[in-house]
Amino acid sequence: MATATEADAMRRAIALAARALGSTSPNPVVGCVLLDAAGRVAGEGWHRRAGAAHAEVEALRAAAAAGRDVRGGTAVVTLEPCNHTGRTGPCAQALIAAGVARVVYAVADPTPAATGGAATLAAAGVDTEGGLLADEAAAGNTAWLTAVLRGRPFVLWKYAATLDGRSAAADGTSRWITSAGSRADVHRLRAEADAVVVGSGTLRADDPHLAVRGLPDGRAVTQPLRVVVDTHASIRPGARVLDDAAPTLIAVGKDADTAHLPGVDVARLPADGTGIDIPALLAELYDRGVRSVLLEGGPRLAGAFLAAGAVDRVVAYLAPALLGAGPAALGDAGIGTIDRALRLDVTDVVRIGPDLRVTAAPLATAPEEN
Amino acid sequence: MATATEADAMRRAIALAARALGSTSPNPVVGCVLLDAAGRVAGEGWHRRAGAAHAEVEALRAAAAAGRDVRGGTAVVTLEPCNHTGRTGPCAQALIAAGVARVVYAVADPTPAATGGAATLAAAGVDTEGGLLADEAAAGNTAWLTAVLRGRPFVLWKYAATLDGRSAAADGTSRWITSAGSRADVHRLRAEADAVVVGSGTLRADDPHLAVRGLPDGRAVTQPLRVVVDTHASIRPGARVLDDAAPTLIAVGKDADTAHLPGVDVARLPADGTGIDIPALLAELYDRGVRSVLLEGGPRLAGAFLAAGAVDRVVAYLAPALLGAGPAALGDAGIGTIDRALRLDVTDVVRIGPDLRVTAAPLATAPEEN
Repeated sequence: MATATEADAMRRAIALAARALGSTSPNPVVGCVLLDAAGRVAGEGWHRRAGAAHAEVEALRAAAAAGRDVRGGTAVVTLEPCNHTGRTGPCAQALIAAGVARVVYAVADPTPAATGGAATLAAAGVDTEGGLLADEAAAGNTAWLTAVLRGRPFVLWKYAATLDGRSAAADGTSRWITSAGSRADVHRLRAEADAVVVGSGTLRADDPHLAVRGLPDGRAVTQPLRVVVDTHASIRPGARVLDDAAPTLIAVGKDADTAHLPGVDVARLPADGTGIDIPALLAELYDRGVRSVLLEGGPRLAGAFLAAGAVDRVVAYLAPALLGAGPAALGDAGIGTIDRALRLDVTDVVRIGPDLRVTAAPLATAPEEN
Repeated sequence: MATATEADAMRRAIALAARALGSTSPNPVVGCVLLDAAGRVAGEGWHRRAGAAHAEVEALRAAAAAGRDVRGGTAVVTLEPCNHTGRTGPCAQALIAAGVARVVYAVADPTPAATGGAATLAAAGVDTEGGLLADEAAAGNTAWLTAVLRGRPFVLWKYAATLDGRSAAADGTSRWITSAGSRADVHRLRAEADAVVVGSGTLRADDPHLAVRGLPDGRAVTQPLRVVVDTHASIRPGARVLDDAAPTLIAVGKDADTAHLPGVDVARLPADGTGIDIPALLAELYDRGVRSVLLEGGPRLAGAFLAAGAVDRVVAYLAPALLGAGPAALGDAGIGTIDRALRLDVTDVVRIGPDLRVTAAPLATAPEEN
């Protein structure tokens, strides 16, 4: 049974892990707090990026640098310590070598290569307990856990619309439907994603840049991969998304002519009359280490993702405004009748300045009439 | 300065007034609590319907019936006591005659015929104070106060839509986008309105009944006037809205052929190619004593009301569902570009079962960019 001190340490470890959201793929975010034998914090760390030290090793180094003794102490960590030697050594061995007497973790590692750390620790005589604040820790790692489960990146579809569901006015103008506060929140979503995806229609309409601006908390940002789904390679060489502020991938149909795009990273993917095959696109991104995708639209691409069952979370920024005309936020998703509506579960409603931010997840099945 | 006892009595009076929402037009809702000389509640009453006793007289009768002495006591009332003899006598005189020593009211009566009650009371030596909990009391009387101010009924536009702004699926099906809880809430809105208005498109699509079903609190309901805006008198004689569950008015264009509607209450109004003139419709309803209108759609009629500046409040029931196709909740409102979007101020967001209910009021001017 974990102590209140360990629970406090786990909350801290979850917060530390969250600092690296968007920077660790294909790895998860992980945080670790080391307690000495008397239960005082001796060191803390988090996994900062793939190839860098794991959270447990960071925390051990921090404790050593501070001259704190962790022998007989406890390691509190958001994910089961790994058991494999990848670019860094196995964390389970590092904790055993440091003389830690107890390991408390939140979520078991579901990956075949890394799992088994808890068993290794227990075999070495370390008191090992899993499941402390597992839901909170899993929520902080949703994208990675979902990606591992599904074998494709976690997809968050974000859109901005008026209360009547328009993403632009009749003349195509859309600056700005939502407030500056909502737009800043979108930059946070971008910073936490590995890739930001838009369609060619959005590219033509808005010429978006898609890079992350500085965040209010001054945190260092790993720029997400900018992905344009552009079946016919219609992008102009001068498009803003092709600058060097962040890496960019243009996903085109197999037979697209890309002669006007020398030096541009292009992925050739299967396509039919409705556009590029979404599962193939996600497989391509997964192979490139992308575990979380922020889908920014437009309506047609969002419809294609939804029709493919490839949206894991929806974040709607609803502006308190009415237009009565103009393009809808969501285009054809293959839904023709009300019984086929894609039902969601609203998990969060927040007011951001004048706007509402509604977060929801698709339900596996239609809810009972209530 | 009002006492805490008087403030408690005013809160009670506001609650009493609300019981008659939807039943008193063209009068306001009013509640009254009488305190005896020692500050104990001696009687209470509320205005139940036009032609019935005013709240003050109800409260005086209740006190008399209970054998309670109000001489030297205080009348706490949500609206300035009236000064005129309409279908009932002036309340100011009734309070003076009863020997009340003090009158505390919330909101001054803005109508030329009824105003002056406070002055009459003061001239008779009654200690008179206005403004106690004025905002709360005014909120309870918003429809009537707005109607008096604008010289037309207060209009609340209610719509139900998916998160992506669709009010039906591509095949026209819409049962049920929102949950049973939201639909019950709409019946409450209907019960509190004097008239429920729909367009002929909604009539054709849904054949709605528009009468109020029993409310959960068992309260007696005055059925609202059912109004169909039907420029060309296209309604079928067998339409459900023409039954005798509630009165019904068909608003048609001046030259419409209504030979198929014998015995039906028809209002002939100016119309052009876009439909019936909305200000003329509202003037007709005002003349019939309607002070609050619940506009239930459809998209085209809602657009016409918004284009006419004739929506005072918006209540959106947003279902956590996506359709990607199907009619939009709001049709053309004469807005062509983003700078002309009708901006709203969200006053309330409530979760009703799985749905969100968003209440908002149009802003007089566009907000500053923030």
